[in-house]
Amino acid sequence: MDPEEYRRAAYASVDYIVDYFKTITERQVVSNVEPGYLRQVLPNEMPQEPESWDDIHNDFDRHIVPGLTHWQSPKFLAWFPANTSFPSILGEHYSAAFSAPAFNWICSPAVTELETIVLDWLAKQMGLPSQFLSDVEGGGVIQGSASEAVVTTMVAARDRYLRDAIASKYPTEEEKETAIAAARGKLVAFTSDQTHSATQKAALIAGVKFIAIKTFPEDDYALTGPALAKAIQEAEEKGLLPFYLTASLGTTAVCAVDKFAELADATKDYPHIWKHVDAAYGGAALICPEFQHYLDGVEYFDSFDMNMHKWLLVNFDASCLYVRRRKDLIDAFSVTPPYLRNEASDSGLVIDYRDWQIPLGRRFRALKIWFVMRAYGVKGMQEHIRKTLGIGIHFMKLIQTRADVFSIATPPRFGLTVFQVLPSKSGETANDITKRVADRINNEKVLFLTASTVDGNMCIRVVTGSPWATDKAMTEAFEYILKVSEEERRT
Amino acid sequence: MDPEEYRRAAYASVDYIVDYFKTITERQVVSNVEPGYLRQVLPNEMPQEPESWDDIHNDFDRHIVPGLTHWQSPKFLAWFPANTSFPSILGEHYSAAFSAPAFNWICSPAVTELETIVLDWLAKQMGLPSQFLSDVEGGGVIQGSASEAVVTTMVAARDRYLRDAIASKYPTEEEKETAIAAARGKLVAFTSDQTHSATQKAALIAGVKFIAIKTFPEDDYALTGPALAKAIQEAEEKGLLPFYLTASLGTTAVCAVDKFAELADATKDYPHIWKHVDAAYGGAALICPEFQHYLDGVEYFDSFDMNMHKWLLVNFDASCLYVRRRKDLIDAFSVTPPYLRNEASDSGLVIDYRDWQIPLGRRFRALKIWFVMRAYGVKGMQEHIRKTLGIGIHFMKLIQTRADVFSIATPPRFGLTVFQVLPSKSGETANDITKRVADRINNEKVLFLTASTVDGNMCIRVVTGSPWATDKAMTEAFEYILKVSEEERRT
Repeated sequence: MDPEEYRRAAYASVDYIVDYFKTITERQVVSNVEPGYLRQVLPNEMPQEPESWDDIHNDFDRHIVPGLTHWQSPKFLAWFPANTSFPSILGEHYSAAFSAPAFNWICSPAVTELETIVLDWLAKQMGLPSQFLSDVEGGGVIQGSASEAVVTTMVAARDRYLRDAIASKYPTEEEKETAIAAARGKLVAFTSDQTHSATQKAALIAGVKFIAIKTFPEDDYALTGPALAKAIQEAEEKGLLPFYLTASLGTTAVCAVDKFAELADATKDYPHIWKHVDAAYGGAALICPEFQHYLDGVEYFDSFDMNMHKWLLVNFDASCLYVRRRKDLIDAFSVTPPYLRNEASDSGLVIDYRDWQIPLGRRFRALKIWFVMRAYGVKGMQEHIRKTLGIGIHFMKLIQTRADVFSIATPPRFGLTVFQVLPSKSGETANDITKRVADRINNEKVLFLTASTVDGNMCIRVVTGSPWATDKAMTEAFEYILKVSEEERRT
Repeated sequence: MDPEEYRRAAYASVDYIVDYFKTITERQVVSNVEPGYLRQVLPNEMPQEPESWDDIHNDFDRHIVPGLTHWQSPKFLAWFPANTSFPSILGEHYSAAFSAPAFNWICSPAVTELETIVLDWLAKQMGLPSQFLSDVEGGGVIQGSASEAVVTTMVAARDRYLRDAIASKYPTEEEKETAIAAARGKLVAFTSDQTHSATQKAALIAGVKFIAIKTFPEDDYALTGPALAKAIQEAEEKGLLPFYLTASLGTTAVCAVDKFAELADATKDYPHIWKHVDAAYGGAALICPEFQHYLDGVEYFDSFDMNMHKWLLVNFDASCLYVRRRKDLIDAFSVTPPYLRNEASDSGLVIDYRDWQIPLGRRFRALKIWFVMRAYGVKGMQEHIRKTLGIGIHFMKLIQTRADVFSIATPPRFGLTVFQVLPSKSGETANDITKRVADRINNEKVLFLTASTVDGNMCIRVVTGSPWATDKAMTEAFEYILKVSEEERRT
C-alpha cells in the first residue's frame, strides 16, 4: 500500500467511522454470531499474494463488523462503559503512525514528557493529594488496565515489604535471604469481598495469599476500618504477614466506596502495608468537585489508579496509575543492561517509564489523552460526567416508579442502578425471576446488561456512560425491561 | 467534536501522516529537545474550556512532533526496528473507533475469533511445530510485548511446577502448602548472558531466582546443551529448583540463536522445566522458509514468542505468544467472579483471552495484523524481510571493505552488524575509540545507533528493518560512520 493508496483508504475509513457513529443507536448492541462463526468464512491460511484494499475492506464490512459488540451504543448497559471519542481516535491514529516501543526518554522524548504532564493535569483536576504529583517523590504513569496497575503495585509492595520489614532486620546477605524465603509464603493481600477480581489475580501472579473481607449492606458494602483491623489481627494470629490492601472507589458489582480514612487509621501502626485505591470506574467522577469528598483519607495511601478508558472519553487503554514514591516502582522493576543505557537516562534528568511497569515497551498513549483534555476542556468533561450520571438517575427513578415489579438492591452511585425483579407467585424467588429476565434480555439482544450476585442475591446492573446516551434511549430501555419483566412474572 | 468536525480533522490527519512518511528520510532521526522541554511550553493545568482542533493541532505540530524520535526513518539503526505500515495504521484507527476492553468472547466476538485465526495463520507460515496451533491443546495470544510474554509464561511455569513437581507429592492441603512455601524461595529460571533483560525482570516479578549462563564467542554466543546441563546440575547441588528456561532466537546484543535441540536434550529428564523461546526480533525472519531450520528442536518447547511489531510491519503492540498447553495459562490466570460469567464462556465453546494474560482488558489488535497480512500477503512480507536483510548485508560488506578501520565483532545475523572501531595509536583501545565514535554519532543526531558491550567489548550495533530503508541510505550511513571514525582516530 503506497502513501496515495493509504490516503484513499484512510479517507474512506474516516467516512465509515462517521457513518458508524451516526447509526450507532440503530445497531443491534450485541452480535448475533455463534461461536466459531469467523473460522467458517475466512480461509485456513494467510493469503500468498497481496490483496486489494477494496477486497480487504469488503470482508471487514461483511465478516468483522457483524461480530462486534457495540460498546458505544446507548443500549450497552453492561459492566462499565468503555468510552471512545473523536479526539481520542485521532490520537490513536497518530500514535500508530509514529509507532515506537518508547521504553525510555530518548526513544521519543515527547512520549515521556507529555505523559508526565497530562497525568499531573489529571491529578490536579481530580483533587488527588499532592503526593501523587510528579514534582516531588511521586508521579503518574499510564498502564494498560486497572488490573495491570494492581499487579504492578502489589509486586512493588511485596518487594518493599521483604526489604524494609524483613531483610533489614538481618546483618548478613545469607540471613537476609533465609528470612525473605521464609516470609514470602506468609505474605497476604487484603481486599473486600466487593473488590474487583483483579486483586485476587494479582495475588496469584505475585505468589502471595489473598483475603477478601466480608462487607455488609448496612455499610453500603464499603470496607470499614474496624473490619480491616480485625482481619489484620486474625491474619497475624495465624502467622501471616499483611503487606497490601486494595480499597475501592466504586466496586464492580455495586459501586461501593470504601472508607479510606478509616482504613488509613486501621493501618497507621503498619507502615509497611501498601494501600492502593482502585478507582477504575468511579475515579472519572472526581473530575467534578462535588465528588472529591470521596478522596478523604487517600492522602495516607501509597497508590491510586483510575481508567480514563472507562467513563472519561479516552479509548482503551489508558489506566492512570499514581504512586506516592516512584522509587518503590523503580526498585522493583529496574533492570538496566548495557544496550538500554544512554546519556539522557544516565543523567537522571528524565523519567524512563519502563521502570514503572511490567512490560518494557510502551505506546504513545498520552497523545490521545492530551487531545481529549483539550478538545473537551474541564467543562466538557464535567458536562459528560454529569449528563450521563443524570441519565443513570433518570433510569433509577423509572425503576422506583414500579416498586410493584422492581426492588433497588443497593443505593445507586456513579450512575449505576442495581435492582432485582420481584417474584409474583409463591414458590418463585427474586433470584429466579431476576435471572430469567436478565437471560432473556441478553438473549434477545435488544439491550446488553450484566447479571451478577450481590451478597448471594441475583441482581441486574444497569449503567451507561456513553456519550451517545440520552434520557429517551434510557426510557426505552426501561420500558423494554419492564415489558420483559411483566411477561416473565406472568409465565 | 461532532462527527463532521472529526471528518475534517481526520482527513487532515491522514494528509499529515502521508506528508510525514514522504519526508521521513529528510527528518533528523533523533530529536534535539532537552529534558523538560515540553513542561516549558505547555500550561500547568488542563484547559477549562474546550479548544478548537486547529489550536490543538498547531500545538501538536509545534511542540509534540519535534520531540519525536523517528523510528521509521532509514537513519534509525538503533536497538531493533519497530515497523509500522499503512494497513496497520488503518487497523489501529478502526480499533480505536470500536473501542472495547474485550476481556471475553461476548465482549466482541470478532476480537477473539480474528485473533485465534491470524495467530494460527502466522504459526503455520513461520513453520512453528503444530503443538502451538489452536486446534488441539495449544494456541496463540497477542501480548503487549515480549517482556510481558516472558512474565506470563514464567508465572504459569512457576505455578505448574509448584503444583505438579511439589504439591502433588503430598496428600494433605496443609502439607502441600508447607512444601510450596519451602519450594518457592528455591525456584530458579535460566537464560544465557545474552538473553534480553526481560527474563531477569520477569524473575523479579515472579519472585524467583535467576541465573544467566555464560556463552562464548566460539559458539557464536549461543546457549548450548552442555552449558545448560552443567548449570542445572550446579543449581541442584545448591538445593535450587530449576523450573524455567528462556532460549533466544536472535539475542539483543548480537542476534545469537540458542541451540534448541541441544537444550531440549539437556532437559529431557526435567519435564517440569518450562522451555520458552524468545524470538522477539528474529522470529519475523521465519516467514521465509530459508530461516525455518532455526526452529529445529522447538517442538520440545512449551512456548514461543515473536513480535510482529518489530520487523513484521505491524505497529507496536503485537507480540505473538504461542503455548503448547493453553491450560497452563488458564490454570495460572483464571479468576471468574459472577459479573464475568456469561453463557458463551460457560458453554466452553469460546476462548476468553483474559485467562491467557496478566491484564483483564485487551484491545482489538488482531485487526491490524489481519489488514497487514492481507495487504502484503506472504509474498509481500517475505519481500520486506529479504529486502531489509539485503540492506543489512550491504552494510556489513561496506564495513568489511575497511578492515583497516573496522572489525566485525560477531557473525552478522538477521541483518544486524556488530562491529568495533580499531584503534590507530598505541595506548588507545578499541573500546575507547568505539565508544567515542558511537557517542559522537548519537550526539550529532545524523544517525541513531546503539553502543553496547559484547563479552566486555564495546561494540556498535547497526540494524534496519524500516520499509523506508534503501541501499543508498545505508551507503550514506556507512560513509558518515567512516568519516567520523577516521576523524576520531586522527585526534
